[in-house]
Amino acid sequence: MSSTTEPRAGGASTLHSQAAAAKATTRRLAAASTREKNAALTAMADALLRATPRILEANCVDVDAAAMRGQTAALVDRLRLTEARVAQIAEGVRQIAALPDPVGRIERLEARPNGLRVGRMTVPLGLVGIVYEARPNVTIDAAALCLKSGNACLLRGGSEALASNRALVSVVGDALASAGLPREAVSFVDDTDREGVREMARLSGVLDLLIPRGGEGLIRFVTEHATVPVIQHYKGVCHVYVDGAADLAMAEAIAVNAKTHRPGVCNAMETLLVDAACAHAFLPRVADAMRAKGVALRGCGRARALVPSMAAASDADWDTEYLDLVLSVRVVDGLDAALAHIAAHGTGHTEAIVSADRDRGERFVREVDASLVLVNASTRFNDGFELGLGAEMGISTTKLHAYGPMGLEELCARKWVGYGAGQIRG
Amino acid sequence: MSSTTEPRAGGASTLHSQAAAAKATTRRLAAASTREKNAALTAMADALLRATPRILEANCVDVDAAAMRGQTAALVDRLRLTEARVAQIAEGVRQIAALPDPVGRIERLEARPNGLRVGRMTVPLGLVGIVYEARPNVTIDAAALCLKSGNACLLRGGSEALASNRALVSVVGDALASAGLPREAVSFVDDTDREGVREMARLSGVLDLLIPRGGEGLIRFVTEHATVPVIQHYKGVCHVYVDGAADLAMAEAIAVNAKTHRPGVCNAMETLLVDAACAHAFLPRVADAMRAKGVALRGCGRARALVPSMAAASDADWDTEYLDLVLSVRVVDGLDAALAHIAAHGTGHTEAIVSADRDRGERFVREVDASLVLVNASTRFNDGFELGLGAEMGISTTKLHAYGPMGLEELCARKWVGYGAGQIRG
Repeated sequence: MSSTTEPRAGGASTLHSQAAAAKATTRRLAAASTREKNAALTAMADALLRATPRILEANCVDVDAAAMRGQTAALVDRLRLTEARVAQIAEGVRQIAALPDPVGRIERLEARPNGLRVGRMTVPLGLVGIVYEARPNVTIDAAALCLKSGNACLLRGGSEALASNRALVSVVGDALASAGLPREAVSFVDDTDREGVREMARLSGVLDLLIPRGGEGLIRFVTEHATVPVIQHYKGVCHVYVDGAADLAMAEAIAVNAKTHRPGVCNAMETLLVDAACAHAFLPRVADAMRAKGVALRGCGRARALVPSMAAASDADWDTEYLDLVLSVRVVDGLDAALAHIAAHGTGHTEAIVSADRDRGERFVREVDASLVLVNASTRFNDGFELGLGAEMGISTTKLHAYGPMGLEELCARKWVGYGAGQIRG
Repeated sequence: MSSTTEPRAGGASTLHSQAAAAKATTRRLAAASTREKNAALTAMADALLRATPRILEANCVDVDAAAMRGQTAALVDRLRLTEARVAQIAEGVRQIAALPDPVGRIERLEARPNGLRVGRMTVPLGLVGIVYEARPNVTIDAAALCLKSGNACLLRGGSEALASNRALVSVVGDALASAGLPREAVSFVDDTDREGVREMARLSGVLDLLIPRGGEGLIRFVTEHATVPVIQHYKGVCHVYVDGAADLAMAEAIAVNAKTHRPGVCNAMETLLVDAACAHAFLPRVADAMRAKGVALRGCGRARALVPSMAAASDADWDTEYLDLVLSVRVVDGLDAALAHIAAHGTGHTEAIVSADRDRGERFVREVDASLVLVNASTRFNDGFELGLGAEMGISTTKLHAYGPMGLEELCARKWVGYGAGQIRG
């Protein structure tokens, strides 16, 4: 990993040679045994606890600087580490060590008519780049997930967290070395200008995948310039559609949970769609329940006719990810209109229907294009832990390769393998 | 599909609106039943046979123009259609109709501790773009594979085949319409300048995937400019490694088949690696066998010491895809040296070991990074039909999403689905 703190000079070749050094470890990482990888992860968790004072000291530098620059309280909060937070990060690393090794599993092995036995084997991707923003815990989560899945990684955190990240990465490097694995397998790009992101996105033949995690601006910038494969973790404008055949108590509980359980995250509901068939019965009660939780409502004309105290929604509301206690509400004429609204305004993240009608539920599941489509459950379940992946790298809204939470398996590719006894083509 | 033959004016928006019209059919295509899709495919096969005279007439225009422009015999051959060739293309469409529908299958459905049943459902990608060169059969193969997998497609063939492709696409459009599916689901970009390829590669939010099929120059151009996901079908510098523990008769048969069965394709062997432990016994016999098939040999110093009549290989030979009856030969010191050579010079396509030693075979399978890794079989098996996919779109050397032959399943994504009974997050 780079430890250069001097001003960058000839930065282009610096990044390229750092990435090449990380790439050079991929054969070793791909062949690492489960035991070796778990030893490194356990060493990493132990070292995080031992080095907590040093990590918190470095984190103070970042937090003070952010506060002095007048950053928002939300950003400072994402940035801040505490003893408890570091312990939680270390515990997350231990949980990743405890997960099954995703590498080297052969699936669907079958004999062809000529006797050649063919199947697919899970293999690491190689060198995975991650570009992220203020949260220093991503440094450890990403390093641990990549290591367990046999991938080397090239991490580039936000400038706000530079001191924290340097301290964390030095702990990771020592843990790798103590387990006999190459330090360069977790490489940190110690650089904070955006030109560096552009360069990273163009490391064709070196970087096997780039994952931008952060605001829409960062993701668009990476997509615009990338020549390497990119998996985007875009925003979620998530809907709950309450069908005419819904159990209204269930619908209310799901809608309130989807909106208010954690409004600042991507799988929170932003728009509630209500079938005209039940709007009269449902809208007033859900409006009361939402208000009791402090949610501001913005409705279409038909919704406001039933709940006149709602503010009026503008066209822009249907495409807005509020990430806040704000909800847009629209009355629609049944399932087809709900499907059309979601096709027009959804972002491929998470969509839910509440209905006791099995056929309508199944049509919704089949016809909605989103990384998770739910029947009678809260949108908040789009999460690696909730779906059983054990840990995740974020939620992909890219349809190729990984659509939804990216766990260890999604950090692997599948190659074909064939076992023969001298077969040739005739 | 576009039928504009006037000079392009405001081409940018023409392509964009054509693509948007194709995109607009994706919801309909994704929801199409197996019966509807198969009816369209059968109609397509029937119509190809009925329209053969018209197709051959159009093809003559292309072939004559290519011959007049002094194109190579190989290109003219790829371009030429005959009655038998059209019948074969139609038969391929019928075979695709007979394959299982890849869409809508739920995999690994399991109940979470809270009772939420979650799984993954195969879904179409949406709108798939394919850029290809002279072979007009790709137009039909791609249209049929996309249709069966519920995808709309935007096809852009080479300028050499323009008249042929117009005739073929008009047949496809009629077949779609006769089955009640939208004509625009198979859209043909009737344009032949490279700027159009650049524009197509930048249709973010419209094109869900772009597959460039053709020479290295085309693929690099697309990758350089793309903002949409790209799956590359790159060249194959494929190796056969003959281990010291190989059955030499088997090794000879595999090497000769891998090199000479069809030397012009990407899964043909380009470099033979021979373990020093058996080089003395193996090299002279395989050299004789290759020569008898007209193969020109280029060897390293150690190979030439054993077979002095071989030409000397230059450094560039180890990275060359000859696509011809030429073979480079290198003597290596056992498995580790073979793995290092392949890691340095392989292109992630197809690699094979010949060895009776099970452990070495397994190490080769696990450690070689290629879309198909074989033990004791010819590299020629990297093919959708041979691996049991039924039909293919080409062979991906992109590791993400699809690594190896792209069949119907690889033209699908997997979304998460969840069936609940009112679950919310606590």
